[in-house]
Amino acid sequence: MIPVKQDLLDAYTRVKPWVHRTPILTSHQLNDWAGATLCFKCENLQKMGAFKMRGAVNAIQSLQAEQKKAGVVTHSSGNFGQAVALAAKNLGIPAYIVMPNNAPEVKVAAVKGYGGEVIFCEPTLQARETAANEIVKRYGATFLHPSNQIEVILGNASAALELLEDTTQLEYVVSPVGGGGLLAGTALAVHYFGNGTKTVGAEPQNVDDAYRSLQSGKIEDNEATNTIADGLRTHLGDVNFPILKEYVDGIVRVTEEEIVEAMKLLWERMKIVVEPSSAVALAAVRKDPERFANKKVGIILSGGNVDLSKLPF
Amino acid sequence: MIPVKQDLLDAYTRVKPWVHRTPILTSHQLNDWAGATLCFKCENLQKMGAFKMRGAVNAIQSLQAEQKKAGVVTHSSGNFGQAVALAAKNLGIPAYIVMPNNAPEVKVAAVKGYGGEVIFCEPTLQARETAANEIVKRYGATFLHPSNQIEVILGNASAALELLEDTTQLEYVVSPVGGGGLLAGTALAVHYFGNGTKTVGAEPQNVDDAYRSLQSGKIEDNEATNTIADGLRTHLGDVNFPILKEYVDGIVRVTEEEIVEAMKLLWERMKIVVEPSSAVALAAVRKDPERFANKKVGIILSGGNVDLSKLPF
Repeated sequence: MIPVKQDLLDAYTRVKPWVHRTPILTSHQLNDWAGATLCFKCENLQKMGAFKMRGAVNAIQSLQAEQKKAGVVTHSSGNFGQAVALAAKNLGIPAYIVMPNNAPEVKVAAVKGYGGEVIFCEPTLQARETAANEIVKRYGATFLHPSNQIEVILGNASAALELLEDTTQLEYVVSPVGGGGLLAGTALAVHYFGNGTKTVGAEPQNVDDAYRSLQSGKIEDNEATNTIADGLRTHLGDVNFPILKEYVDGIVRVTEEEIVEAMKLLWERMKIVVEPSSAVALAAVRKDPERFANKKVGIILSGGNVDLSKLPF
Repeated sequence: MIPVKQDLLDAYTRVKPWVHRTPILTSHQLNDWAGATLCFKCENLQKMGAFKMRGAVNAIQSLQAEQKKAGVVTHSSGNFGQAVALAAKNLGIPAYIVMPNNAPEVKVAAVKGYGGEVIFCEPTLQARETAANEIVKRYGATFLHPSNQIEVILGNASAALELLEDTTQLEYVVSPVGGGGLLAGTALAVHYFGNGTKTVGAEPQNVDDAYRSLQSGKIEDNEATNTIADGLRTHLGDVNFPILKEYVDGIVRVTEEEIVEAMKLLWERMKIVVEPSSAVALAAVRKDPERFANKKVGIILSGGNVDLSKLPF
């Protein structure tokens, strides 16, 4: 069930009109720091501030006309809820976003600002799923998973596809891995459109389920979620895992200190606002000189949605 | 003595190989907030983090071979010192940067990091000028002024030139005004390459010497320099002033609160790190709906060099 090349091209055709073609930025200073030649794909500059817009658009655009009319539902306290709300608004269909009743007010406001209908629930996974199922039953809405769904993965792939089109001779592409939706999409795009390019995942050491899963050959769990990279606290999904096993060359793990250091450099030297999850990918390149030294490396900066009043530096 | 069209094209040829063609970013959210369609020219993403690189490169590249060999000198505690150091390093010539002995360590380190030789002096304008003159005498180095020099103005013009090439039908271009070097260059580019486009300056109300100078017809002074927009605390120069009188359509003044509000929006919504001076230009568009409402407006974001530990929000 692994997507073929044409699936990625079809998804890109659906996604393209609704997203920014985000710029590729470079920095000599960061090259020196990382010991590699870096090309940053700035999905922090994407609509609603994250690559999630790509997967949400493709998932919604892939629906049948009848399904679209009934709307879509997801549970998310983060970027995907905003992405679904905005993508649905652009297409004029209803979006129901299940959020925990302790979600930060700023995130609730963002979803509502994009026209999403917020349904609050208790802050447990079970409560979220129950609430989402209820919406599916009541409205006939289609459930969209933030990462573990093939249409979402195919939409996400368009970021790496553009990165490969806008650069030459990348030897590696690095993307962060949480649920695995971005890394799986990236790996597919690199497989079909790269030129001998390899895909590497970057993961916080504190939540290294993807790393351990690739080691053991089965999906492993995280005992804790204590990483600053809030976008990567989720677990690897079973739709993503087979793609990662097939097309990912390895996963590099980084410490919390390394994440914060890379994040500060991206802000200070590159002059861009990125969330900690994005910094994980940069930190990974410096962490593994055996792999990356003097190589040309594309880095997917996943997003820039941070609370400016709670910076780690 | 006002430059002609070919002068701008020649300067751009000199500047182009040494600078990033910075991206143009847009944001529906900021359009809604400002009540206009905005195209942001992101010079915060320029090499060394500011448009100053453009003027420094052109000033140095315009020197004769003998002059280059003897090097260049400037006095600056801000972006221009870094720009001259980096531009000189790229061309392999000496750069002497006179800095006040109370300059922040981070700025001194930045100049040294770009290979500039730092000469400390007492923190007065007179001491700076004396120290710079001494370097001129001792080494035969050429003095470069951060804003009030025609080669610097012509280099700066290349930012607006690119902005006009990369957009269509801009009705206004807004740039901040401090010493006037960016606004003068912008106004020249808009005059020669715009299509009925007008140039407007944006200035903090607390240091509105450019506004008052255009009112009175002669260069006015500021009594205070109490603005958060540290790049705009300098005074309007006599090389810039005639260009502003001829080609600038007006200057909009904004309060400190308006600057901070616009700055926060640029960070939060656009996901970019900009310095307060850049936010002045955005704040000006919202401030003057009579002029800008529903217009297509280019905004020059001048730079992104800020101290992350001293944010105003």
